[in-house]
Amino acid sequence: MTSADPVALAEALIRCPSVTPDEAGALAFCEKVLAEAGFATERVTFSTPGTPDVENLYARCGTGAPYLLFAGHTDVVPPGDAGRWRHDPFSGTIEDGVLYGRGACDMKGGVAAMLAAAIRFVMANPGFGGSIGFLLTGDEEGPAVNGTVKLLEWAKARGERFDHCILGEPTNPKHLGDMIKIGRRGSLTGHLTVHGRQGHVAYPHLADNPVHGMVRLISALLAEPLDAGTAHFAPSNLEMTTFDVGNPASNVIPAEARATFNIRFNDTWLPATLAAEIERRLAAAAGNAVRYEVAFAPTNATAFVTEPGDFVTLVQDAVEAHTGRRPALSTTGGTSDARFIKDHCPVIEYGLVGETMHQVDECARVSDIEALTAIYETVLSRYFMPS
Amino acid sequence: MTSADPVALAEALIRCPSVTPDEAGALAFCEKVLAEAGFATERVTFSTPGTPDVENLYARCGTGAPYLLFAGHTDVVPPGDAGRWRHDPFSGTIEDGVLYGRGACDMKGGVAAMLAAAIRFVMANPGFGGSIGFLLTGDEEGPAVNGTVKLLEWAKARGERFDHCILGEPTNPKHLGDMIKIGRRGSLTGHLTVHGRQGHVAYPHLADNPVHGMVRLISALLAEPLDAGTAHFAPSNLEMTTFDVGNPASNVIPAEARATFNIRFNDTWLPATLAAEIERRLAAAAGNAVRYEVAFAPTNATAFVTEPGDFVTLVQDAVEAHTGRRPALSTTGGTSDARFIKDHCPVIEYGLVGETMHQVDECARVSDIEALTAIYETVLSRYFMPS
Ligand SMILES: [Zn+2]
Ligand SMILES: [Zn+2]
Repeated sequence: MTSADPVALAEALIRCPSVTPDEAGALAFCEKVLAEAGFATERVTFSTPGTPDVENLYARCGTGAPYLLFAGHTDVVPPGDAGRWRHDPFSGTIEDGVLYGRGACDMKGGVAAMLAAAIRFVMANPGFGGSIGFLLTGDEEGPAVNGTVKLLEWAKARGERFDHCILGEPTNPKHLGDMIKIGRRGSLTGHLTVHGRQGHVAYPHLADNPVHGMVRLISALLAEPLDAGTAHFAPSNLEMTTFDVGNPASNVIPAEARATFNIRFNDTWLPATLAAEIERRLAAAAGNAVRYEVAFAPTNATAFVTEPGDFVTLVQDAVEAHTGRRPALSTTGGTSDARFIKDHCPVIEYGLVGETMHQVDECARVSDIEALTAIYETVLSRYFMPS
Repeated sequence: MTSADPVALAEALIRCPSVTPDEAGALAFCEKVLAEAGFATERVTFSTPGTPDVENLYARCGTGAPYLLFAGHTDVVPPGDAGRWRHDPFSGTIEDGVLYGRGACDMKGGVAAMLAAAIRFVMANPGFGGSIGFLLTGDEEGPAVNGTVKLLEWAKARGERFDHCILGEPTNPKHLGDMIKIGRRGSLTGHLTVHGRQGHVAYPHLADNPVHGMVRLISALLAEPLDAGTAHFAPSNLEMTTFDVGNPASNVIPAEARATFNIRFNDTWLPATLAAEIERRLAAAAGNAVRYEVAFAPTNATAFVTEPGDFVTLVQDAVEAHTGRRPALSTTGGTSDARFIKDHCPVIEYGLVGETMHQVDECARVSDIEALTAIYETVLSRYFMPS
């Protein structure tokens, strides 16, 4: 049946121009395909005053345990200048065995593979005993406020309990067997303000230069590593993202300097303990000489790891069985919706090759979409019917 | 005669709203007063394509040697919000022995004292044998391109040769006997650009953070004093005046950072040797790690000093005779037109109390204007008729 053809599903999804927050028919299509295969489906819309509504889809097949959840998103980032693409970004064109289009790898190709694998499995094993679910959002590439995080709360309130989750983000750098993500670093953003006293450069003793104070604070933040890394994580890393004064007068010492930093941190820290450490370093560097404030942006991106064990090994084995490569277990890269899912059940991420994600001519090899489908099928078989 | 009343002259000058580059009758008034006292006067207008014409005045009494030149400016900085002044800024109102108005101390009060002193002297000593001159510009508070610097070249081309010059800027911090300026620091402005490579904060190894590079360069510039000061000068001083990146995205490492610094430097340096030292420090700090450029703004503000000696002592003695205070010899503060005059003859600066210059309610004590006139008269007497 066509609905079990992952490439046809991926093409159909790419043809929905579902740039966040537009649903553009993508979730409706998934719902129809899952419903036809016997899944109970539910569309859930969340909204925040002042922002567009976001649509989401929850689907479940079976009522028993264990419960394996597939998670993903059907929204995509904007294509940019469509004229720079070799094919229209929403045409879903295949050329030389490669499927082109916005979302091809991030992550409509991955969603298509999940759908096809689950449908094939439940069609072939109608009495498999457990539960397979889908949690698909249209708000991953946007603010991520009315998507996965709220859908999980909604499901929990209904009594849904998941045992494991696979999020289908494109985790492989180059080849399908490269990498499973078993965790993600956290992210903490801080805004620094240094208050000086304006004055003429010829009379520095009557002024207080906030640029000098800010350079001193930043030097202190960069001087020592935050940690040496942990079992599953690289060392935490701080990057200054901006430094702004905006003083056009080269004979004037300005009154204020502002700067922003972002830290990608490992499981040495919680956002609060990391913020405390930053505050400690700033206070030590400032002494009585620098008047400053630091304000941390609210964050829900804590570092987490799904410890290696039976489930991780099961997925790793399935990938190796189909690709001949044993995927590395990694916690690198940016944040993802896994940071929300980890509060509900163990979660790993595995999907297509992400090399072209968010770029012009985003694409996925047709053979990779088919192999990923087979990998997901093997995971389902071994998960529900261990030998 | 009224023309020898410095307070009346100061009031008349303040009533000309001569905000740079407007002459507003101020130089015409000085010309009339000097001509009536027997000075040969000449108005000289200079212009630069694209900027307003600037008027200047040159006057000379006598043809012999020595030649003592008074220099000054009749232009003023804008008054700002006139409603914040206790009196209209161009009304020249006296209240409780204080003359209020824009330019009262910087430097129409000083110009009035020079005019009155010179007129009194030449009226009382018609055959004094030397020469007294005035070099008054309307472009000191502006770009300073079509004022003193060109008027000096014009005078030189006519064969005028000066032996000494007194510039009447307000040199006293608090009291009339506080300070003579015998030199000024130089000023050098540099613009720094650090080129990085843009990227996502989660993948710093694929990017190159120019904010970190700029902080490293600035730290190196601030780490060591430029010098320890010299006989007549405080240590040279570098101030960062701005640092700009303008990156609003806290998950993006920016591509470029820019910053500007200004150095007020002493006679250890010439602009070229100082620029070379800065380039050496930057290159050492950058190594192969930071890609940067530094561009120095053109400058004609070199450090200079008029070495203490007979002339400086003569002025110092005259100040002490009338104020009971021996003025300090200083090289502090910003730049002034003395930086141009020093290429033509030894120059010192002495004038009123500068506490309110460029501020709302700029003012000068009437008794200070009268005392300054007496000091200038004593200088003239002792200069042309040494005992
Ligand atoms: Zn994605
Ligand atoms: Zn002035």
